[in-house]
Amino acid sequence: MKESLLIAIGGNSLIRAGQKGTIPEQLANARSLAANIAEIAVRGFRFVLTHGNGPQVGSQLLRSELASAQTYPLSLDVCVSMSQGEIGYILQNALQSALSSRGLRIPVATLLTQVVVERTDPAFLNPMKPIGPFYSKEAALRKEEDLGWTMIEDAARGYRRVVPSPRPLRILELDVIAKCLELGMILIAAGGGGIPVTDENGTFIGVEAVIDKDSVSALLAVELRVEHFLISTDVDYVYVNYKRPGEKAITSMSVEEAKRYMQEGHFLEGSMKPKIDAAIQFLEAGGRDVIITSNENLLTALEGKTGTRIVK
Amino acid sequence: MKESLLIAIGGNSLIRAGQKGTIPEQLANARSLAANIAEIAVRGFRFVLTHGNGPQVGSQLLRSELASAQTYPLSLDVCVSMSQGEIGYILQNALQSALSSRGLRIPVATLLTQVVVERTDPAFLNPMKPIGPFYSKEAALRKEEDLGWTMIEDAARGYRRVVPSPRPLRILELDVIAKCLELGMILIAAGGGGIPVTDENGTFIGVEAVIDKDSVSALLAVELRVEHFLISTDVDYVYVNYKRPGEKAITSMSVEEAKRYMQEGHFLEGSMKPKIDAAIQFLEAGGRDVIITSNENLLTALEGKTGTRIVK
Repeated sequence: MKESLLIAIGGNSLIRAGQKGTIPEQLANARSLAANIAEIAVRGFRFVLTHGNGPQVGSQLLRSELASAQTYPLSLDVCVSMSQGEIGYILQNALQSALSSRGLRIPVATLLTQVVVERTDPAFLNPMKPIGPFYSKEAALRKEEDLGWTMIEDAARGYRRVVPSPRPLRILELDVIAKCLELGMILIAAGGGGIPVTDENGTFIGVEAVIDKDSVSALLAVELRVEHFLISTDVDYVYVNYKRPGEKAITSMSVEEAKRYMQEGHFLEGSMKPKIDAAIQFLEAGGRDVIITSNENLLTALEGKTGTRIVK
Repeated sequence: MKESLLIAIGGNSLIRAGQKGTIPEQLANARSLAANIAEIAVRGFRFVLTHGNGPQVGSQLLRSELASAQTYPLSLDVCVSMSQGEIGYILQNALQSALSSRGLRIPVATLLTQVVVERTDPAFLNPMKPIGPFYSKEAALRKEEDLGWTMIEDAARGYRRVVPSPRPLRILELDVIAKCLELGMILIAAGGGGIPVTDENGTFIGVEAVIDKDSVSALLAVELRVEHFLISTDVDYVYVNYKRPGEKAITSMSVEEAKRYMQEGHFLEGSMKPKIDAAIQFLEAGGRDVIITSNENLLTALEGKTGTRIVK
């Protein structure tokens, strides 16, 4: 059996800094990403892809709100499912085309994925994850009163809704993902962290929350027992003293070193920290190694030539 | 191996006549539908589900348009992919809950599905399928000029965009669907007729079109070689002289009889006719039987107690 990977694609892979996120932009970005991923398939690895959805789900929340006088509004869980549709289609289309142009006949598909969270998760008492558009102070107060949203003030850009980001416990479609991976198919799954649901005695209820993409990727990588966990991001390496005096790229570190760097505050909350947390979770559950690098370097990093490698 | 089915769920199953289509309404409708489908699973049949997306994709086009000054607009193929996300999530969630409450552990998942059409299909020269919101005459003229849309006048409600409805040729994710069906998983696939793409030498390009849901369901049923093809609709039976003097429910008919009734004009264009066309296509390709009935009667019709059965 060929070695297996989980590749977590960065949230900004399809919509780059400064872009509006138009569909042609996303398609073009997906094509360059797909070229890199196809090369991993060429080497014979089996893999599952996960991805973020920040800008896309934010846009969809905005569409729902602006159209709410004329058509039915969407709940957050449904917006996540729709972003899995949007991004999954764009990614699978680009990847199928990239594989086909290399003469590879590997089935590619996107699976809608629900992830069970606990209603008693402390995150529900303390919503922290900013999501969707920015509002004026007046609009923000109205949202709090009318819809019960929790709003926070963002330094420069106004007010924004925050939602709970509970811990992922169980991936409902795991059996299907595992079987497809075993058969050598490429699945795109758990997009945007998965659609969050609670399990009420076997009835699954969608909730207004978002799950961290890196955290659910770690859970999926552990459950699938893949050998390697690749996390793509904006930078080629993890750094100590990132953008500070003494900045240094890390080519390799152990879990122990990672934990020490984390305690020393080298990894930014909401940015590199959740990736390192995910890496540690995967390695402590028995994974072989974690690689963190940019989209462009995924294959060379897997070959040990670049990127940051974390091992037990 | 247990007998296999393809069940094509009617476009109005989740949003009933007179409803606005709110998410709670769709969830409630999905729950009653799922209870019926779960009973088919209880009897041991293996199956794939397809579904329409008319009201949902129309709402999404409207959201995209109303928000286009504030966030990126969506192409029609992307709107279809998002409707697969929305409806697939609602259906799979309801079905997983219904199976779980019956003590059945059958994996359920939704697969985004692209369907290849030919750029030379005559439908592209003659767009016929109405889609999205209604417009005033002035707004319709502006759409024609600014966006190159084709608009038609609807008797009572104003103007509406029409798009091509090309013939489905190939289902890109067929291998994955076939394998999952073989393994006894329940897949929701080809939602809304599938995301239409053309195959430009192995590069798949999304197009502004929609594919008829019944037509793609027939193609999928043939390719999967299922024994039975169930088509759910608003009525319990197919009728001759529907809503006219001499109205009579058909309990059973042959392909030959179906063709004769069709020539005599018994089946309404855009309503029962595409279902009968799909039935004939399936049976002439070797399918065993087609059943057309309401959601409520799917199981009893499969047992031969109600509904319209069509055989070779």
